[in-house]
Amino acid sequence: MNTVDLNCDLGESFGAYRMGNDQEILDYVTSVNVACGFHAGDPTVMRKTVQLALGKEVKIGAHPGLQDLIGFGRRNMNISPQEAYDIVVYQIGALNGFLQSEGGSMQHVKPHGALYNMAAKNKELSMAIAEAVYKVNPELILFGLSGSELIRAGQAIGLQTGSEVFADRTYQHDGSLTSRLEKDALIENDDVAVAQVIRMVKEGKVLSQQGSDVALKADTICIHGDGAHALSFARHVRESLQLSEITVKSFS
Amino acid sequence: MNTVDLNCDLGESFGAYRMGNDQEILDYVTSVNVACGFHAGDPTVMRKTVQLALGKEVKIGAHPGLQDLIGFGRRNMNISPQEAYDIVVYQIGALNGFLQSEGGSMQHVKPHGALYNMAAKNKELSMAIAEAVYKVNPELILFGLSGSELIRAGQAIGLQTGSEVFADRTYQHDGSLTSRLEKDALIENDDVAVAQVIRMVKEGKVLSQQGSDVALKADTICIHGDGAHALSFARHVRESLQLSEITVKSFS
Amino acid sequence: MNTVDLNCDLGESFGAYRMGNDQEILDYVTSVNVACGFHAGDPTVMRKTVQLALGKEVKIGAHPGLQDLIGFGRRNMNISPQEAYDIVVYQIGALNGFLQSEGGSMQHVKPHGALYNMAAKNKELSMAIAEAVYKVNPELILFGLSGSELIRAGQAIGLQTGSEVFADRTYQHDGSLTSRLEKDALIENDDVAVAQVIRMVKEGKVLSQQGSDVALKADTICIHGDGAHALSFARHVRESLQLSEITVKSFS
Amino acid sequence: MNTVDLNCDLGESFGAYRMGNDQEILDYVTSVNVACGFHAGDPTVMRKTVQLALGKEVKIGAHPGLQDLIGFGRRNMNISPQEAYDIVVYQIGALNGFLQSEGGSMQHVKPHGALYNMAAKNKELSMAIAEAVYKVNPELILFGLSGSELIRAGQAIGLQTGSEVFADRTYQHDGSLTSRLEKDALIENDDVAVAQVIRMVKEGKVLSQQGSDVALKADTICIHGDGAHALSFARHVRESLQLSEITVKSFS
Repeated sequence: MNTVDLNCDLGESFGAYRMGNDQEILDYVTSVNVACGFHAGDPTVMRKTVQLALGKEVKIGAHPGLQDLIGFGRRNMNISPQEAYDIVVYQIGALNGFLQSEGGSMQHVKPHGALYNMAAKNKELSMAIAEAVYKVNPELILFGLSGSELIRAGQAIGLQTGSEVFADRTYQHDGSLTSRLEKDALIENDDVAVAQVIRMVKEGKVLSQQGSDVALKADTICIHGDGAHALSFARHVRESLQLSEITVKSFS
Repeated sequence: MNTVDLNCDLGESFGAYRMGNDQEILDYVTSVNVACGFHAGDPTVMRKTVQLALGKEVKIGAHPGLQDLIGFGRRNMNISPQEAYDIVVYQIGALNGFLQSEGGSMQHVKPHGALYNMAAKNKELSMAIAEAVYKVNPELILFGLSGSELIRAGQAIGLQTGSEVFADRTYQHDGSLTSRLEKDALIENDDVAVAQVIRMVKEGKVLSQQGSDVALKADTICIHGDGAHALSFARHVRESLQLSEITVKSFS
Repeated sequence: MNTVDLNCDLGESFGAYRMGNDQEILDYVTSVNVACGFHAGDPTVMRKTVQLALGKEVKIGAHPGLQDLIGFGRRNMNISPQEAYDIVVYQIGALNGFLQSEGGSMQHVKPHGALYNMAAKNKELSMAIAEAVYKVNPELILFGLSGSELIRAGQAIGLQTGSEVFADRTYQHDGSLTSRLEKDALIENDDVAVAQVIRMVKEGKVLSQQGSDVALKADTICIHGDGAHALSFARHVRESLQLSEITVKSFS
Repeated sequence: MNTVDLNCDLGESFGAYRMGNDQEILDYVTSVNVACGFHAGDPTVMRKTVQLALGKEVKIGAHPGLQDLIGFGRRNMNISPQEAYDIVVYQIGALNGFLQSEGGSMQHVKPHGALYNMAAKNKELSMAIAEAVYKVNPELILFGLSGSELIRAGQAIGLQTGSEVFADRTYQHDGSLTSRLEKDALIENDDVAVAQVIRMVKEGKVLSQQGSDVALKADTICIHGDGAHALSFARHVRESLQLSEITVKSFS
């Protein structure tokens, strides 16, 4: 029987600024990626987020990002592999502080935004990130885009990996996501998105924009927590997976 | 036989900015307080500092500060006890990331600058800081001003504490440090400073500015690492302690 | 005939974070205080806010705050008068950049949050802020709490001042606002708030929490732009002022 | 007779961190580029820097950079042209605050580090920067790499431009600087550097790494202010220019 993890970003509020439906989205996912204070989140938000997640049936991961609060960590920056290593160690450590103080443990690490996207294509950056995760704790699971350099780097260093797929994004023939700068990057129709995700999990295939099938591994599905539609979509995905006899559960 | 620890701040550089004689001061101290990226330090500096310290015979502690890089964490801020708790957990965690990845462990936590000074006099803030340290790891030693609220808070929660004294600062009759805003706050004459520190360690007493002796515990002596004189003073203190048959060594 | 200005804070969004109903509140106020990137706002938000305000019948002012984004500039910080001077000059200048590039001009300066509150009671801080405003442009109007040190400092240096009153806050017998830490700090009943503000404008008096009338000048009324109720309250205040034959208009 | 401007970066200290020999370098240059608080500098440093420069015979310019203090603005970031526009307007405005309050005026704008380098090759980014400068004040002079997109953008929008050359860097056959990642990027021999700069000013030519002469305009020469050697090199350059009957003076 097929199983898959459902993950979403959590704890993206900052100071007086609110973002996301953290409380509600937790009912639909099995793993959460907690912002660590660089691209989003702050120490108080992180503590509350950890407390919130520990009260639910979800696994907790770190969501390290670039030091670009103003750009929400979404703008590519020309950081060195060593700098990537350092910011990942720092942020995993910071979140671990709250997990230790609240009595929880970390399941995984998923780089955020531009760090995730740059790592997907850059081998050196990916190796640095994987090494950072491994050296802090070799039991952590590294989440990355299915088929990406980051997944290969994690496997090369000996980490368990979580190959991530996206329900609401279209794919290119090489397995990469269609750039958000292109039209047709997003799948607007929920039924189409759900059908795509079920096929990825059951068959390990996705139909690319070029019309060819692409093989890909689907260990975990990325769900967004922003906006009212996000919640109904998350429920839709979860219910459809279960109706398709796919077990939704976290890794560990 | 008397023993005492010698501690100094370390890793206060930031990005392209250099501060301190980190390499050299390590020959004279037994414990170091590593800046954690809020008032000073950054992920890369933290990694290098941990690597540097692990190569020497010193114990490593976290030096959490206020989120005030521009003021170097020296300006009092009206943070709540909860906020103090959160920023201490975060910063201990972040430094622990580098200790885990480099194969070291944390001995102690010493709040920095305004956080240290505010905690010395504020019971609620001190209790929050002590609780943060305890909940991350009850084996950590909490450093604070000898006789301060922070030391009392650490003891109340069950932490081992390190009562800190200052070689180059004068004291008031209540055991507090003379404010830096007053003249006579600093002891300019090295021999006077060294004599004061030896008496604090051996007799547990210091002569206050008011002319009366004050009892105080001296577990660890704060040494500054900035400037060329800092190094010669550090050597002077260390040699004088040894000549006075005081063993200089860390806690653990 | 009585006249009064209605002001509100504007442009408090930051990066991906949204705050306030900027578009809507502009229909009810005559002056806006634009965040300048320290406690809130960023360069992009500032440009958009200036463009938005220039399209409406409102005067534009700078809203400089403390460098405390995480605390939204609401936590008192022990900055020196010189530091207050420097951060006010910087922030006025930054906003002026957008006014110059968009073809607008600055009417006033109103310190934000903790800077406003500290200045209300601290003469040296107020003198430094007033001097900063004066030296950048002596034609600027300095907004401050009615009866406060900041208003006195502005007058002493030769600035036009805007004495500010609050519709939804209660007052103490010395003319200060009841601390938000006290119950009864806020007036929950809109009709009571509106009656208070009309009396402040028409009679120059407010009934203190101690039961005595306090004389105070009401040049401008602070309106909040957050939340749906803020808009209905703003409309209520504005309509009630007009029904009471008070002309609502900006200074210049 | 030939004339040329000598410029250097100034005011790169930050909070407790010192950088550069600001006082000393001012004796050798005719224009200074003042950091504006994004990649370096802070409000207090900016005020002191403006005061220092106004006491010397130098013209003052803004040196806007990326919001990357930790990377000193040297890491390329994928900002949009609109974001470049916004951060340039903001930073020019902020420096203008201090020029207004101190009674000075701005001569020029020179983007810093990665913003300078990205603009040299990116037309859209250059147009956005040039437009930002022009809209704040069309009398400002835009400094950029000689022959770059930024100089072309400045000319296209109607700004006076300052074509900048480097004494201590080697050039490629297309007039671009040899990347710092290559060996031979820097000219280590001072006499060679001085000879290169004199030829650039007098003949408008530089010998490229490929052995061919490249034509280039030399309105202003970039001098570095860091390190003891920087001062002796600056003096060497200045004296050599004068011995070669090249007048060293600013634009205005």
